[in-house]
Amino acid sequence: MFEGPMGESIIGKAQERGLVDLHISNFRDFSDNKHQNVDDYPYGGGAGMLLKVQPVYDNLQKIEEASPTTNKRLILLDPAGKPFDQKMAEEFSEEEHLVFICGHYEGYDERIRSLVTDEVSLGDYVLTGGELGAMVMIDATVRLLPDVLGNNASAQTDSHSTGLLEHPQYTRPAVFNEMEVPAVLMNGNHQLIAQWQLKESLRRTYLRRPDMLEKISLTPEMKQLLNEIKREISS
Amino acid sequence: MFEGPMGESIIGKAQERGLVDLHISNFRDFSDNKHQNVDDYPYGGGAGMLLKVQPVYDNLQKIEEASPTTNKRLILLDPAGKPFDQKMAEEFSEEEHLVFICGHYEGYDERIRSLVTDEVSLGDYVLTGGELGAMVMIDATVRLLPDVLGNNASAQTDSHSTGLLEHPQYTRPAVFNEMEVPAVLMNGNHQLIAQWQLKESLRRTYLRRPDMLEKISLTPEMKQLLNEIKREISS
Repeated sequence: MFEGPMGESIIGKAQERGLVDLHISNFRDFSDNKHQNVDDYPYGGGAGMLLKVQPVYDNLQKIEEASPTTNKRLILLDPAGKPFDQKMAEEFSEEEHLVFICGHYEGYDERIRSLVTDEVSLGDYVLTGGELGAMVMIDATVRLLPDVLGNNASAQTDSHSTGLLEHPQYTRPAVFNEMEVPAVLMNGNHQLIAQWQLKESLRRTYLRRPDMLEKISLTPEMKQLLNEIKREISS
Repeated sequence: MFEGPMGESIIGKAQERGLVDLHISNFRDFSDNKHQNVDDYPYGGGAGMLLKVQPVYDNLQKIEEASPTTNKRLILLDPAGKPFDQKMAEEFSEEEHLVFICGHYEGYDERIRSLVTDEVSLGDYVLTGGELGAMVMIDATVRLLPDVLGNNASAQTDSHSTGLLEHPQYTRPAVFNEMEVPAVLMNGNHQLIAQWQLKESLRRTYLRRPDMLEKISLTPEMKQLLNEIKREISS
């Protein structure tokens, strides 16, 4: 399951270049019964099975023995966790060792939560398992490591890294199906281009995600552009 | 890249059973040059490359010819899009045909946005490409289709489906490393168990995600339990 998404493209190349090291561990190898079961019925009834605490505990013990660094995060993937965001990806990218615990069940035995340092949710939706969530978090984290992206500048100017959504961008051709590239981008005036980009970045954030504007501190230039945008919209 | 996560487990079984049909299409097959390039430099400068509008346009045309249903959503995966959530997964699960457009580049030529019906973001973080995002959305959507999950009840009682986070759950053993299962879950009184589960669901949501409580309408019982919780916390 992990081989394709983690072996291809940028994450795969980061592994080949020794910038990151990924290991997969299977709870079933830590099952205490010969059927390799790791789930069981919930106390008090209810639909579905729960991941048991014992296989997770034993698996984490094994990881701790193999890699006894103190700089380690034990991350439980769960819809009830703290929502994953770019700030968390940046925090994770500073750590030496991340362990992602992915269930593929109805839920976790509550005591598993006492074994981890973080409970994290990918977003406000439910998945069949935690594996895709772990891959998303690994991808978001690894791309922030030094030298992983070809162009170091790229990681910092994306949507969410600056606290604003990215401005519209255009590439060739200049006209496609009667849709034209804005003239300002073609005139070579870098100051005007930068101002247009900042303004359109603010406009898109204001229109689509006003909640994001409340989380950043606006410069005087940004405040002025935002006032222009509001006037343009209401007129 | 898609083979592992989409071929394994519940999504793989749903395909085998004919409950869902997945197709992959590659923009490069629609490139207008012999190097199969589909990206180009941004007008006005800036780091990174952009996905061109032409290969996406031609690819969508081909899909439209092969499957001319009107009940179709064309979904652009982009950090500047509307945040994906459980409600959107439910909406997607009602559609006949979903097309996910995943870039693997710095960004999109703005004119691509005019070709789609939805711009959706997986969350407030940046990934190296849209593929993992598409797989997450497919997973969240397909598990809601009739007959996909073994137990039809399961899909509806999870965190985010009820608007509340799930209550703590426990499975055997009754005691693990001195951590005990709450007595109420062992006594077989289903009314008490249901009340405990609702209260703990409310408690977890109140403590971790108060924003979610504002989005649902509380029954009189829920209001009373919430008052109890607030008293317990402040005492």
